[in-house]
Amino acid sequence: MKLLTYRHAGRETFGAVVGDGVVDLSPWRDGVATLRDYIACGGWREAAQHVEGLPIAAKLSEIEYLPVIPQPEKIVCAVRNYLDHHNEALASGLQRELSDFPPIFFRVWRTQVGHNQPVVRPRVSETLDWEGELAVIIGTGGRDIAAADAWQHIAGYSIYNDVSVREWQFHAKQIAAGKNFQDTGPFGPWMVTADEIAPGRTLKLQTRLNGEVVQSSDTSHLIFSIPRLINYASTMVTLSPGDVIVTGTPAGVGFGRKPPLYMKPGDVVEVEIEAIGVLRNPVVAQA
Amino acid sequence: MKLLTYRHAGRETFGAVVGDGVVDLSPWRDGVATLRDYIACGGWREAAQHVEGLPIAAKLSEIEYLPVIPQPEKIVCAVRNYLDHHNEALASGLQRELSDFPPIFFRVWRTQVGHNQPVVRPRVSETLDWEGELAVIIGTGGRDIAAADAWQHIAGYSIYNDVSVREWQFHAKQIAAGKNFQDTGPFGPWMVTADEIAPGRTLKLQTRLNGEVVQSSDTSHLIFSIPRLINYASTMVTLSPGDVIVTGTPAGVGFGRKPPLYMKPGDVVEVEIEAIGVLRNPVVAQA
Repeated sequence: MKLLTYRHAGRETFGAVVGDGVVDLSPWRDGVATLRDYIACGGWREAAQHVEGLPIAAKLSEIEYLPVIPQPEKIVCAVRNYLDHHNEALASGLQRELSDFPPIFFRVWRTQVGHNQPVVRPRVSETLDWEGELAVIIGTGGRDIAAADAWQHIAGYSIYNDVSVREWQFHAKQIAAGKNFQDTGPFGPWMVTADEIAPGRTLKLQTRLNGEVVQSSDTSHLIFSIPRLINYASTMVTLSPGDVIVTGTPAGVGFGRKPPLYMKPGDVVEVEIEAIGVLRNPVVAQA
Repeated sequence: MKLLTYRHAGRETFGAVVGDGVVDLSPWRDGVATLRDYIACGGWREAAQHVEGLPIAAKLSEIEYLPVIPQPEKIVCAVRNYLDHHNEALASGLQRELSDFPPIFFRVWRTQVGHNQPVVRPRVSETLDWEGELAVIIGTGGRDIAAADAWQHIAGYSIYNDVSVREWQFHAKQIAAGKNFQDTGPFGPWMVTADEIAPGRTLKLQTRLNGEVVQSSDTSHLIFSIPRLINYASTMVTLSPGDVIVTGTPAGVGFGRKPPLYMKPGDVVEVEIEAIGVLRNPVVAQA
Protein backbone atom coordinates (compact mmCIF):
# COMPACT_ATOMS: atom_id res chain seq x y z
CA MET A 1 0.00 0.00 0.00
CA LYS A 2 0.93 3.61 -0.46
CA LEU A 3 0.25 5.63 2.72
CA LEU A 4 0.40 9.40 2.88
CA THR A 5 -0.37 12.56 4.80
CA TYR A 6 -2.38 15.21 3.01
CA ARG A 7 -4.68 18.18 3.30
CA HIS A 8 -8.09 18.25 1.67
CA ALA A 9 -11.03 20.58 2.16
CA GLY A 10 -9.00 22.46 4.78
CA ARG A 11 -8.34 19.38 6.88
CA GLU A 12 -5.03 17.63 7.49
CA THR A 13 -5.36 13.85 7.61
CA PHE A 14 -3.72 10.63 6.45
CA GLY A 15 -4.79 7.84 4.19
CA ALA A 16 -3.99 5.33 1.48
CA VAL A 17 -3.72 5.64 -2.29
CA VAL A 18 -6.37 3.62 -4.15
CA GLY A 19 -6.23 4.02 -7.93
CA ASP A 20 -6.09 7.73 -8.65
CA GLY A 21 -7.67 8.69 -5.35
CA VAL A 22 -7.10 8.58 -1.62
CA VAL A 23 -9.04 6.85 1.13
CA ASP A 24 -9.10 8.77 4.41
CA LEU A 25 -7.95 6.39 7.15
CA SER A 26 -8.33 8.78 10.09
CA PRO A 27 -11.82 7.50 11.01
CA TRP A 28 -10.35 3.99 11.41
CA ARG A 29 -9.79 4.28 15.15
CA ASP A 30 -10.24 7.01 17.77
CA GLY A 31 -6.94 8.51 18.82
CA VAL A 32 -5.18 7.54 15.60
CA ALA A 33 -5.12 10.94 13.93
CA THR A 34 -1.82 10.89 12.06
CA LEU A 35 0.17 8.48 9.93
CA ARG A 36 2.72 8.42 12.75
CA ASP A 37 -0.01 7.21 15.13
CA TYR A 38 -1.15 4.66 12.52
CA ILE A 39 2.39 3.33 12.29
CA ALA A 40 2.86 3.33 16.08
CA CYS A 41 -0.27 1.22 16.69
CA GLY A 42 0.62 -1.23 13.91
CA GLY A 43 -2.41 -0.29 11.82
CA TRP A 44 -0.24 0.11 8.74
CA ARG A 45 0.24 -3.66 8.56
CA GLU A 46 -3.42 -4.17 7.67
CA ALA A 47 -3.89 -1.04 5.57
CA ALA A 48 -5.11 -3.08 2.59
CA GLN A 49 -7.96 -4.46 4.67
CA HIS A 50 -8.76 -1.09 6.23
CA VAL A 51 -9.38 0.58 2.89
CA GLU A 52 -11.81 -2.11 1.68
CA GLY A 53 -15.30 -0.77 1.30
CA LEU A 54 -14.26 2.77 2.22
CA PRO A 55 -15.06 5.61 -0.17
CA ILE A 56 -12.50 7.57 -2.14
CA ALA A 57 -12.23 10.84 -0.19
CA ALA A 58 -10.56 12.82 -2.97
CA LYS A 59 -8.69 12.45 -6.21
CA LEU A 60 -4.90 12.59 -5.93
CA SER A 61 -5.06 15.65 -8.18
CA GLU A 62 -7.22 17.44 -5.60
CA ILE A 63 -5.13 16.96 -2.48
CA GLU A 64 -2.26 18.94 -1.04
CA TYR A 65 0.53 16.52 -0.25
CA LEU A 66 2.21 17.05 3.10
CA PRO A 67 5.49 15.48 4.29
CA VAL A 68 4.82 11.73 4.66
CA ILE A 69 5.45 12.03 8.39
CA PRO A 70 5.09 15.76 9.12
CA GLN A 71 6.59 15.60 12.59
CA PRO A 72 8.85 12.58 13.06
CA GLU A 73 10.45 12.38 16.47
CA LYS A 74 13.81 11.96 14.73
CA ILE A 75 15.19 12.36 11.23
CA VAL A 76 18.58 10.63 11.06
CA CYS A 77 20.53 11.44 7.90
CA ALA A 78 23.51 9.53 6.57
CA VAL A 79 26.38 11.53 5.08
CA ARG A 80 28.58 10.41 2.21
CA ASN A 81 26.93 7.03 1.94
CA TYR A 82 27.32 6.30 -1.79
CA LEU A 83 30.81 5.49 -3.02
CA ASP A 84 30.23 7.42 -6.27
CA HIS A 85 29.25 10.55 -4.30
CA HIS A 86 32.27 10.16 -2.04
CA ASN A 87 34.58 10.08 -5.06
CA GLU A 88 32.88 13.10 -6.58
CA ALA A 89 33.42 15.07 -3.37
CA LEU A 90 37.12 14.16 -3.38
CA ALA A 91 37.37 15.29 -7.00
CA SER A 92 35.83 18.64 -6.09
CA GLY A 93 38.59 19.26 -3.57
CA LEU A 94 36.95 18.19 -0.30
CA GLN A 95 39.26 16.19 1.88
CA ARG A 96 37.32 13.38 3.40
CA GLU A 97 38.24 9.86 4.35
CA LEU A 98 35.85 6.96 4.25
CA SER A 99 34.87 6.27 7.81
CA ASP A 100 34.50 2.87 9.44
CA PHE A 101 31.24 4.14 10.89
CA PRO A 102 28.27 5.88 9.28
CA PRO A 103 28.61 9.66 9.54
CA ILE A 104 25.23 11.04 10.55
CA PHE A 105 23.49 14.31 11.34
CA PHE A 106 19.98 15.20 12.35
CA ARG A 107 17.44 17.17 10.39
CA VAL A 108 14.57 18.86 12.26
CA TRP A 109 11.00 18.27 11.13
CA ARG A 110 10.31 21.96 10.59
CA THR A 111 12.56 21.87 7.52
CA GLN A 112 10.27 19.42 5.71
CA VAL A 113 7.88 20.04 2.83
CA GLY A 114 5.54 17.73 0.94
CA HIS A 115 5.39 16.67 -2.69
CA ASN A 116 4.63 19.66 -4.96
CA GLN A 117 5.23 22.15 -2.15
CA PRO A 118 7.96 24.70 -2.88
CA VAL A 119 11.56 24.31 -1.81
CA VAL A 120 12.61 27.74 -0.57
CA ARG A 121 15.99 29.22 -1.43
CA PRO A 122 16.95 31.35 1.57
CA ARG A 123 17.94 34.98 1.19
CA VAL A 124 21.38 34.34 2.68
CA SER A 125 22.79 32.04 0.01
CA GLU A 126 22.42 30.99 -3.62
CA THR A 127 24.12 27.61 -3.11
CA LEU A 128 20.95 25.51 -2.99
CA ASP A 129 21.73 21.95 -4.04
CA TRP A 130 19.71 18.77 -4.49
CA GLU A 131 20.34 15.36 -2.91
CA GLY A 132 17.94 12.61 -3.96
CA GLU A 133 17.76 9.94 -1.26
CA LEU A 134 15.88 6.83 -0.21
CA ALA A 135 14.06 7.30 3.10
CA VAL A 136 13.29 4.45 5.47
CA ILE A 137 10.38 4.81 7.90
CA ILE A 138 10.65 2.95 11.19
CA GLY A 139 7.62 0.86 12.10
CA THR A 140 8.60 -0.95 15.26
CA GLY A 141 10.85 1.09 17.51
CA GLY A 142 13.64 -0.20 19.68
CA ARG A 143 17.11 0.25 21.10
CA ASP A 144 20.20 -1.74 20.16
CA ILE A 145 18.53 -3.31 17.14
CA ALA A 146 20.79 -5.96 15.61
CA ALA A 147 21.44 -5.54 11.89
CA ALA A 148 20.00 -9.01 11.34
CA ASP A 149 16.68 -7.91 12.85
CA ALA A 150 16.57 -4.46 11.27
CA TRP A 151 14.34 -5.25 8.29
CA GLN A 152 11.56 -6.23 10.66
CA HIS A 153 11.61 -2.73 12.15
CA ILE A 154 10.83 -1.01 8.85
CA ALA A 155 7.28 0.14 8.05
CA GLY A 156 8.10 1.36 4.56
CA TYR A 157 10.11 3.42 2.12
CA SER A 158 9.78 6.87 0.69
CA ILE A 159 11.74 9.55 -1.15
CA TYR A 160 13.65 12.43 0.43
CA ASN A 161 15.36 15.36 -1.20
CA ASP A 162 17.99 16.35 1.36
CA VAL A 163 18.29 19.84 -0.14
CA SER A 164 21.42 21.55 1.14
CA VAL A 165 22.60 25.11 1.41
CA ARG A 166 26.24 24.32 0.60
CA GLU A 167 27.67 27.61 1.79
CA TRP A 168 26.21 27.08 5.27
CA GLN A 169 27.04 23.38 5.19
CA PHE A 170 30.69 24.36 4.94
CA HIS A 171 30.61 27.20 7.48
CA ALA A 172 32.20 24.77 9.91
CA LYS A 173 33.12 21.10 10.16
CA GLN A 174 29.60 20.34 11.35
CA ILE A 175 27.25 20.30 8.37
CA ALA A 176 23.92 20.44 10.21
CA ALA A 177 23.38 24.15 9.54
CA GLY A 178 23.33 23.78 5.75
CA LYS A 179 20.98 20.84 6.08
CA ASN A 180 18.39 22.53 8.24
CA PHE A 181 17.02 25.48 6.36
CA GLN A 182 13.28 25.92 6.51
CA ASP A 183 11.35 24.36 3.61
CA THR A 184 14.30 22.44 2.20
CA GLY A 185 13.36 18.86 3.03
CA PRO A 186 10.91 17.40 0.46
CA PHE A 187 9.59 14.07 1.74
CA GLY A 188 7.01 12.16 -0.26
CA PRO A 189 4.79 11.79 -2.09
CA TRP A 190 3.93 8.75 0.03
CA MET A 191 5.49 5.74 1.72
CA VAL A 192 5.29 2.29 0.18
CA THR A 193 4.77 -0.31 2.89
CA ALA A 194 7.63 -2.71 3.48
CA ASP A 195 5.69 -5.78 2.26
CA GLU A 196 5.97 -4.42 -1.30
CA ILE A 197 9.75 -4.01 -1.39
CA ALA A 198 11.87 -7.05 -0.55
CA PRO A 199 14.64 -6.48 2.01
CA GLY A 200 17.80 -5.37 0.26
CA ARG A 201 16.19 -5.01 -3.15
CA THR A 202 18.24 -2.71 -5.36
CA LEU A 203 16.24 0.38 -6.26
CA LYS A 204 17.12 2.75 -9.08
CA LEU A 205 17.30 6.41 -8.06
CA GLN A 206 17.23 9.37 -10.43
CA THR A 207 17.19 13.12 -9.74
CA ARG A 208 16.13 15.55 -12.46
CA LEU A 209 16.51 19.32 -12.56
CA ASN A 210 14.09 20.91 -15.02
CA GLY A 211 13.76 17.51 -16.69
CA GLU A 212 17.48 16.91 -17.10
CA VAL A 213 18.93 13.90 -15.31
CA VAL A 214 21.50 15.05 -12.71
CA GLN A 215 21.75 11.96 -10.50
CA SER A 216 21.34 8.39 -11.70
CA SER A 217 22.38 5.53 -9.48
CA ASP A 218 20.92 2.75 -7.42
CA THR A 219 20.96 1.56 -3.84
CA SER A 220 23.52 -1.18 -4.53
CA HIS A 221 26.16 1.57 -4.11
CA LEU A 222 25.30 2.26 -0.48
CA ILE A 223 28.42 2.15 1.69
CA PHE A 224 26.52 1.52 4.93
CA SER A 225 23.49 -0.70 4.39
CA ILE A 226 20.04 0.05 5.73
CA PRO A 227 20.38 -2.59 8.49
CA ARG A 228 23.75 -1.10 9.49
CA LEU A 229 22.27 2.40 9.69
CA ILE A 230 19.39 1.16 11.85
CA ASN A 231 21.80 -0.75 14.06
CA TYR A 232 24.06 2.28 14.43
CA ALA A 233 21.30 4.79 15.17
CA SER A 234 19.53 2.50 17.62
CA THR A 235 22.76 1.87 19.50
CA MET A 236 22.72 5.58 20.34
CA VAL A 237 19.08 6.12 21.10
CA THR A 238 15.74 4.36 21.00
CA LEU A 239 14.16 4.53 17.56
CA SER A 240 10.45 5.33 17.58
CA PRO A 241 7.66 4.50 15.15
CA GLY A 242 7.64 7.09 12.38
CA ASP A 243 11.32 7.95 12.76
CA VAL A 244 12.97 8.51 9.41
CA ILE A 245 16.38 7.27 8.27
CA VAL A 246 17.55 9.19 5.23
CA THR A 247 20.14 6.99 3.61
CA GLY A 248 22.44 9.35 1.71
CA THR A 249 22.78 10.58 -1.87
CA PRO A 250 24.66 9.24 -4.90
CA ALA A 251 26.96 11.16 -7.25
CA GLY A 252 25.71 14.07 -9.32
CA VAL A 253 25.07 16.85 -6.82
CA GLY A 254 25.46 20.40 -8.05
CA PHE A 255 28.46 21.48 -6.00
CA GLY A 256 30.55 18.63 -7.44
CA ARG A 257 30.24 20.08 -10.97
CA LYS A 258 32.66 22.43 -12.67
CA PRO A 259 31.33 25.05 -12.53
CA PRO A 260 28.92 24.23 -9.69
CA LEU A 261 25.24 24.14 -10.61
CA TYR A 262 22.72 25.30 -8.04
CA MET A 263 18.94 25.49 -7.98
CA LYS A 264 17.26 28.84 -8.45
CA PRO A 265 13.72 30.17 -8.21
CA GLY A 266 11.66 28.86 -11.11
CA ASP A 267 13.45 25.50 -11.25
CA VAL A 268 11.67 22.20 -10.74
CA VAL A 269 13.49 19.34 -9.02
CA GLU A 270 12.31 15.73 -9.14
CA VAL A 271 13.59 12.62 -7.40
CA GLU A 272 12.36 9.29 -8.73
CA ILE A 273 12.93 5.99 -6.96
CA GLU A 274 11.94 2.69 -8.49
CA ALA A 275 8.89 1.04 -6.89
CA ILE A 276 8.09 4.21 -4.95
CA GLY A 277 7.35 7.10 -7.32
CA VAL A 278 8.37 10.66 -8.12
CA LEU A 279 8.86 13.49 -5.61
CA ARG A 280 8.54 16.80 -7.43
CA ASN A 281 9.11 20.30 -6.06
CA PRO A 282 9.30 23.77 -7.54
CA VAL A 283 11.94 26.15 -6.20
CA VAL A 284 11.01 29.64 -5.00
CA ALA A 285 12.87 32.47 -3.30
CA GLN A 286 12.43 33.20 0.41
CA ALA A 287 9.83 35.97 0.68
CA MET B 1 10.95 32.93 38.97
CA LYS B 2 12.26 29.40 38.73
CA LEU B 3 10.04 27.26 36.48
CA LEU B 4 10.37 23.52 36.18
CA THR B 5 8.90 20.25 34.95
CA TYR B 6 8.49 17.52 37.51
CA ARG B 7 6.68 14.34 38.52
CA HIS B 8 4.87 14.04 41.82
CA ALA B 9 2.35 11.48 43.04
CA GLY B 10 2.66 9.69 39.69
CA ARG B 11 1.73 12.76 37.67
CA GLU B 12 3.95 14.77 35.31
CA THR B 13 3.32 18.50 35.50
CA PHE B 14 5.05 21.87 35.58
CA GLY B 15 5.26 24.62 38.12
CA ALA B 16 7.28 27.25 39.93
CA VAL B 17 9.67 27.05 42.86
CA VAL B 18 8.43 28.91 45.95
CA GLY B 19 10.74 28.62 48.94
CA ASP B 20 11.58 24.96 49.38
CA GLY B 21 8.47 23.80 47.55
CA VAL B 22 6.77 23.85 44.17
CA VAL B 23 3.48 25.34 43.08
CA ASP B 24 1.69 23.33 40.39
CA LEU B 25 0.87 25.72 37.55
CA SER B 26 -0.93 23.25 35.30
CA PRO B 27 -4.42 24.24 36.60
CA TRP B 28 -3.73 27.83 35.49
CA ARG B 29 -5.42 27.48 32.11
CA ASP B 30 -7.06 24.65 30.16
CA GLY B 31 -4.84 23.38 27.37
CA VAL B 32 -1.65 24.58 29.03
CA ALA B 33 -0.36 21.25 30.25
CA THR B 34 3.40 21.60 29.89
CA LEU B 35 6.06 24.21 30.56
CA ARG B 36 6.50 24.41 26.79
CA ASP B 37 2.80 25.33 26.45
CA TYR B 38 3.17 27.85 29.29
CA ILE B 39 6.08 29.47 27.46
CA ALA B 40 4.28 29.40 24.11
CA CYS B 41 1.22 31.23 25.46
CA GLY B 42 3.35 33.80 27.27
CA GLY B 43 2.14 32.71 30.71
CA TRP B 44 5.74 32.56 31.97
CA ARG B 45 5.92 36.37 31.93
CA GLU B 46 3.41 36.60 34.77
CA ALA B 47 4.49 33.50 36.68
CA ALA B 48 5.06 35.50 39.86
CA GLN B 49 1.43 36.61 39.85
CA HIS B 50 0.14 33.14 38.95
CA VAL B 51 1.69 31.52 42.00
CA GLU B 52 0.20 34.05 44.44
CA GLY B 53 -2.33 32.45 46.72
CA LEU B 54 -1.71 28.98 45.29
CA PRO B 55 -0.76 26.14 47.64
CA ILE B 56 2.61 24.42 47.74
CA ALA B 57 1.95 21.15 45.90
CA ALA B 58 5.08 19.39 47.17
CA LYS B 59 8.44 20.00 48.75
CA LEU B 60 11.38 20.13 46.33
CA SER B 61 12.78 17.15 48.20
CA GLU B 62 9.69 15.12 47.29
CA ILE B 63 9.56 15.67 43.54
CA GLU B 64 11.22 13.88 40.65
CA TYR B 65 12.85 16.51 38.47
CA LEU B 66 12.32 16.02 34.75
CA PRO B 67 14.18 17.81 31.94
CA VAL B 68 13.12 21.47 32.12
CA ILE B 69 11.51 21.14 28.69
CA PRO B 70 11.11 17.37 28.22
CA GLN B 71 10.29 17.57 24.51
CA PRO B 72 11.63 20.75 22.91
CA GLU B 73 10.96 20.97 19.21
CA LYS B 74 14.65 21.70 18.70
CA ILE B 75 17.83 21.52 20.76
CA VAL B 76 20.54 23.50 18.98
CA CYS B 77 24.00 22.93 20.42
CA ALA B 78 27.04 25.10 19.84
CA VAL B 79 30.39 23.37 19.35
CA ARG B 80 33.74 24.73 20.46
CA ASN B 81 32.29 28.00 21.71
CA TYR B 82 34.69 28.84 24.54
CA LEU B 83 38.18 29.95 23.55
CA ASP B 84 39.73 28.07 26.49
CA HIS B 85 38.04 24.82 25.37
CA HIS B 86 39.15 25.38 21.79
CA ASN B 87 42.76 25.72 22.92
CA GLU B 88 42.50 22.63 25.07
CA ALA B 89 41.25 20.61 22.10
CA LEU B 90 44.19 21.80 19.99
CA ALA B 91 46.56 20.80 22.76
CA SER B 92 45.05 17.32 22.84
CA GLY B 93 45.88 16.86 19.17
CA LEU B 94 42.59 17.69 17.47
CA GLN B 95 43.03 19.80 14.38
CA ARG B 96 40.35 22.41 14.31
CA GLU B 97 40.29 25.98 13.13
CA LEU B 98 38.20 28.68 14.67
CA SER B 99 35.30 29.21 12.35
CA ASP B 100 33.80 32.53 11.34
CA PHE B 101 30.41 30.97 12.00
CA PRO B 102 29.06 29.05 14.98
CA PRO B 103 29.49 25.29 14.46
CA ILE B 104 26.26 23.63 15.55
CA PHE B 105 24.66 20.22 15.83
CA PHE B 106 21.29 19.03 17.01
CA ARG B 107 20.52 16.92 20.03
CA VAL B 108 17.24 14.95 20.11
CA TRP B 109 14.95 15.28 23.12
CA ARG B 110 14.98 11.58 23.84
CA THR B 111 18.57 11.92 25.06
CA GLN B 112 17.56 14.23 27.91
CA VAL B 113 17.32 13.49 31.65
CA GLY B 114 16.33 15.65 34.59
CA HIS B 115 18.22 16.79 37.67
CA ASN B 116 19.15 13.82 39.88
CA GLN B 117 18.22 11.31 37.18
CA PRO B 118 21.05 9.01 36.14
CA VAL B 119 23.32 9.65 33.19
CA VAL B 120 23.74 6.28 31.49
CA ARG B 121 27.12 5.10 30.21
CA PRO B 122 26.32 2.97 27.16
CA ARG B 123 27.64 -0.56 26.80
CA VAL B 124 29.53 0.31 23.62
CA SER B 125 32.03 2.79 25.05
CA GLU B 126 33.73 3.89 28.24
CA THR B 127 34.56 7.39 26.94
CA LEU B 128 31.74 9.22 28.72
CA ASP B 129 32.69 12.86 29.22
CA TRP B 130 31.06 15.90 30.84
CA GLU B 131 30.39 19.29 29.26
CA GLY B 132 28.81 21.87 31.57
CA GLU B 133 26.91 24.45 29.53
CA LEU B 134 24.54 27.36 29.84
CA ALA B 135 21.18 26.66 28.18
CA VAL B 136 18.96 29.39 26.75
CA ILE B 137 15.23 28.74 26.44
CA ILE B 138 13.41 30.53 23.64
CA GLY B 139 10.26 32.36 24.70
CA THR B 140 9.07 34.15 21.59
CA GLY B 141 9.77 32.24 18.40
CA GLY B 142 10.69 33.68 15.06
CA ARG B 143 12.74 33.48 11.88
CA ASP B 144 15.64 35.74 10.92
CA ILE B 145 15.89 37.23 14.40
CA ALA B 146 18.39 40.10 14.40
CA ALA B 147 21.10 39.82 17.06
CA ALA B 148 19.97 43.19 18.43
CA ASP B 149 16.49 41.78 19.07
CA ALA B 150 17.59 38.37 20.35
CA TRP B 151 17.42 39.07 24.08
CA GLN B 152 13.70 39.76 23.77
CA HIS B 153 13.18 36.25 22.44
CA ILE B 154 14.59 34.54 25.54
CA ALA B 155 12.25 33.15 28.21
CA GLY B 156 15.02 32.08 30.56
CA TYR B 157 18.22 30.25 31.35
CA SER B 158 19.05 26.81 32.62
CA ILE B 159 21.93 24.35 32.92
CA TYR B 160 22.79 21.61 30.46
CA ASN B 161 25.35 18.85 30.73
CA ASP B 162 26.09 17.99 27.10
CA VAL B 163 27.48 14.60 28.06
CA SER B 164 29.41 13.11 25.17
CA VAL B 165 30.52 9.64 24.19
CA ARG B 166 33.89 10.74 22.77
CA GLU B 167 34.61 7.54 20.90
CA TRP B 168 31.39 7.86 18.91
CA GLN B 169 31.80 11.62 18.58
CA PHE B 170 35.00 10.96 16.65
CA HIS B 171 33.70 8.03 14.57
CA ALA B 172 33.40 10.51 11.72
CA LYS B 173 33.71 14.24 11.06
CA GLN B 174 30.10 14.69 12.14
CA ILE B 175 29.91 14.61 15.94
CA ALA B 176 26.14 14.17 16.34
CA ALA B 177 26.39 10.44 17.12
CA GLY B 178 28.50 10.90 20.26
CA LYS B 179 26.18 13.65 21.41
CA ASN B 180 22.94 11.70 21.10
CA PHE B 181 23.15 8.71 23.35
CA GLN B 182 20.07 7.96 25.38
CA ASP B 183 20.04 9.43 28.88
CA THR B 184 23.10 11.62 28.38
CA GLY B 185 21.57 15.10 28.34
CA PRO B 186 20.95 16.42 31.89
CA PHE B 187 18.87 19.61 31.69
CA GLY B 188 17.79 21.35 34.87
CA PRO B 189 16.99 21.60 37.63
CA TRP B 190 14.81 24.52 36.48
CA MET B 191 14.88 27.58 34.27
CA VAL B 192 15.34 31.04 35.74
CA THR B 193 13.15 33.52 33.89
CA ALA B 194 14.94 36.14 31.83
CA ASP B 195 13.82 39.06 34.00
CA GLU B 196 16.20 37.82 36.72
CA ILE B 197 19.36 37.71 34.61
CA ALA B 198 20.35 40.88 32.78
CA PRO B 199 21.18 40.47 29.07
CA GLY B 200 24.85 39.67 28.65
CA ARG B 201 25.54 39.28 32.35
CA THR B 202 28.66 37.21 32.92
CA LEU B 203 27.79 33.97 34.72
CA LYS B 204 30.32 31.76 36.47
CA LEU B 205 30.17 28.10 35.44
CA GLN B 206 31.70 25.21 37.34
CA THR B 207 31.59 21.46 36.72
CA ARG B 208 32.49 19.03 39.48
CA LEU B 209 33.16 15.30 39.26
CA ASN B 210 32.74 13.59 42.61
CA GLY B 211 33.15 16.98 44.24
CA GLU B 212 36.38 17.89 42.45
CA VAL B 213 36.28 20.96 40.21
CA VAL B 214 36.95 19.95 36.60
CA GLN B 215 35.64 22.99 34.73
CA SER B 216 35.72 26.54 36.04
CA SER B 217 35.07 29.42 33.70
CA ASP B 218 32.45 32.03 32.91
CA THR B 219 30.34 33.11 30.00
CA SER B 220 32.59 36.06 29.16
CA HIS B 221 34.72 33.52 27.24
CA LEU B 222 31.98 32.67 24.75
CA ILE B 223 33.26 32.97 21.18
CA PHE B 224 29.81 33.37 19.64
CA SER B 225 27.47 35.35 21.88
CA ILE B 226 23.95 34.30 22.78
CA PRO B 227 22.42 36.88 20.37
CA ARG B 228 24.72 35.64 17.58
CA LEU B 229 23.67 32.02 18.19
CA ILE B 230 19.98 32.98 18.12
CA ASN B 231 20.52 35.01 14.96
CA TYR B 232 22.40 32.16 13.28
CA ALA B 233 19.92 29.43 14.20
CA SER B 234 16.88 31.51 13.28
CA THR B 235 18.38 32.35 9.89
CA MET B 236 18.15 28.63 9.15
CA VAL B 237 14.80 27.78 10.60
CA THR B 238 12.00 29.28 12.66
CA LEU B 239 12.72 29.06 16.37
CA SER B 240 9.74 27.98 18.47
CA PRO B 241 8.83 28.64 22.09
CA GLY B 242 10.59 26.12 24.29
CA ASP B 243 13.44 25.55 21.85
CA VAL B 244 16.76 25.21 23.61
CA ILE B 245 20.09 26.75 22.61
CA VAL B 246 22.96 25.00 24.38
CA THR B 247 25.82 27.44 24.25
CA GLY B 248 28.96 25.32 24.43
CA THR B 249 31.39 24.22 27.11
CA PRO B 250 34.55 25.79 28.55
CA ALA B 251 37.94 24.11 29.09
CA GLY B 252 38.34 21.17 31.43
CA VAL B 253 36.62 18.28 29.70
CA GLY B 254 37.92 14.80 30.37
CA PHE B 255 39.27 13.92 26.95
CA GLY B 256 41.56 16.93 26.99
CA ARG B 257 43.46 15.58 30.00
CA LYS B 258 46.60 13.46 29.94
CA PRO B 259 45.65 10.76 30.53
CA PRO B 260 41.98 11.31 29.63
CA LEU B 261 39.50 11.12 32.49
CA TYR B 262 36.08 9.69 31.82
CA MET B 263 32.97 9.22 33.94
CA LYS B 264 32.15 5.76 35.22
CA PRO B 265 29.24 4.16 37.03
CA GLY B 266 29.13 5.38 40.61
CA ASP B 267 30.40 8.87 39.78
CA VAL B 268 28.40 12.00 40.46
CA VAL B 269 28.65 14.95 38.09
CA GLU B 270 27.48 18.45 38.96
CA VAL B 271 27.27 21.60 36.89
CA GLU B 272 26.77 24.86 38.75
CA ILE B 273 25.96 28.15 37.06
CA GLU B 274 25.76 31.41 38.97
CA ALA B 275 22.25 32.76 39.47
CA ILE B 276 20.72 29.48 38.26
CA GLY B 277 21.71 26.60 40.54
CA VAL B 278 23.28 23.16 40.53
CA LEU B 279 22.46 20.32 38.12
CA ARG B 280 23.50 17.06 39.70
CA ASN B 281 23.45 13.57 38.17
CA PRO B 282 24.75 10.16 39.19
CA VAL B 283 26.31 7.96 36.52
CA VAL B 284 25.14 4.39 35.98
CA ALA B 285 25.90 1.66 33.45
CA GLN B 286 23.47 0.79 30.67
CA ALA B 287 21.42 -2.17 31.87
